[in-house]
Amino acid sequence: MKTVVIVAHPDYSDSSTQQFLLESGKHLEEVYYHFIDDKEIDGHKERQLLEKYDRIIFQFPMYWYSAPYELKKWIDQVFDDSFIKGRMEGEGKELGLVVTLGVAEESFAAGKAEKFTLSELFRPFEALASKCQMIYLPIFSVSLFHYMPEVNRKTLLIKYQQYLTKSNEGTFKSEEEWFITYLEKYRERFSDERKGRINLILNQVKENRETLDDLLVLVKEMREDAY
Amino acid sequence: MKTVVIVAHPDYSDSSTQQFLLESGKHLEEVYYHFIDDKEIDGHKERQLLEKYDRIIFQFPMYWYSAPYELKKWIDQVFDDSFIKGRMEGEGKELGLVVTLGVAEESFAAGKAEKFTLSELFRPFEALASKCQMIYLPIFSVSLFHYMPEVNRKTLLIKYQQYLTKSNEGTFKSEEEWFITYLEKYRERFSDERKGRINLILNQVKENRETLDDLLVLVKEMREDAY
Repeated sequence: MKTVVIVAHPDYSDSSTQQFLLESGKHLEEVYYHFIDDKEIDGHKERQLLEKYDRIIFQFPMYWYSAPYELKKWIDQVFDDSFIKGRMEGEGKELGLVVTLGVAEESFAAGKAEKFTLSELFRPFEALASKCQMIYLPIFSVSLFHYMPEVNRKTLLIKYQQYLTKSNEGTFKSEEEWFITYLEKYRERFSDERKGRINLILNQVKENRETLDDLLVLVKEMREDAY
Repeated sequence: MKTVVIVAHPDYSDSSTQQFLLESGKHLEEVYYHFIDDKEIDGHKERQLLEKYDRIIFQFPMYWYSAPYELKKWIDQVFDDSFIKGRMEGEGKELGLVVTLGVAEESFAAGKAEKFTLSELFRPFEALASKCQMIYLPIFSVSLFHYMPEVNRKTLLIKYQQYLTKSNEGTFKSEEEWFITYLEKYRERFSDERKGRINLILNQVKENRETLDDLLVLVKEMREDAY
């Protein structure tokens, strides 16, 4: 699967959140970052770009309950009916949003300060995905990055990489498989000592999987006996 | 009450819908039209403008389930926290949307082609109004104007004028009062013959109101007797 991340931030080089996300994702082989701004847009070129990728991610800070205008400008100029009908529909493509927030995500709910959930506020993107017959991915939000402790940042890094590259499945098994694939793929980049530890972890995960599979068979048999 | 209509249309002089709306509203004394485009925005000047009006209307065609980017650019550059806290909050201002659609409004519903209602798609504006402690008005939508018969256009004209100037109350009485006010205010602009007909209508409406008020008193008495 190939992923393109369309980054719309008025000044992403000055944003520590955007820099962190970029550092987390840029070495992944199947991920391409595309930065947009207020400059002239070549609709034809942008449409050719979108065609090449299976997963399209819009990454931006939330401004007034929506994307910054630069992204809307890009969408207004790139998407049109004939492009959707001819080159997006029926391709099984996915659309995702990586949204950074300046307030706690908990405030986005009925009765709370921001009143509406992110799912509600980003309906226009869900509607666009539906129009293009794309699969709409769960929103990936990053709130209050500045105040995030180091350990949470590490989790964020992994979750973000998974959002860009992992199959859209909520099972524990798919998460496990993602770890195995990525540890095997990138272990060569590390020192021998680290490689040794990665191999240990890999073996452990695989063994755990065997035990789990055995247990699942057992549970299934017990259930059948019970009826 | 004073109303400002912020019009965001990439080419409003070429849009017959926008021209119709402008022709319908521009002679109303308490309504001011403000046209925005992709040019430089003087945030300070725009904020001074907003302060002066009680009802703020965003008028635009729906592009990809949202406003054209020109409006988002304007919002991104005009609104900020200190402006909201200092000069919008607690002023009892109202925010309304006049949205023109290229498809039938009925398709905006669960299970229909566009999947989401206009109320859902424009949540970001509702959230903005809530943030500014403004009253969010029901969305005023105009769909398929090109195919609209003359009689529907006349109704549209009145409904649109009411959206810009009538108090936000759903009662029949408030609609009646709006008609009386506007017929009395603008009858001088017409020929003597027309003025005569307007006066006849005015008298009729006022007489009807007296009869209705009498009936309402009667109904109230009957209800009280029944208990």
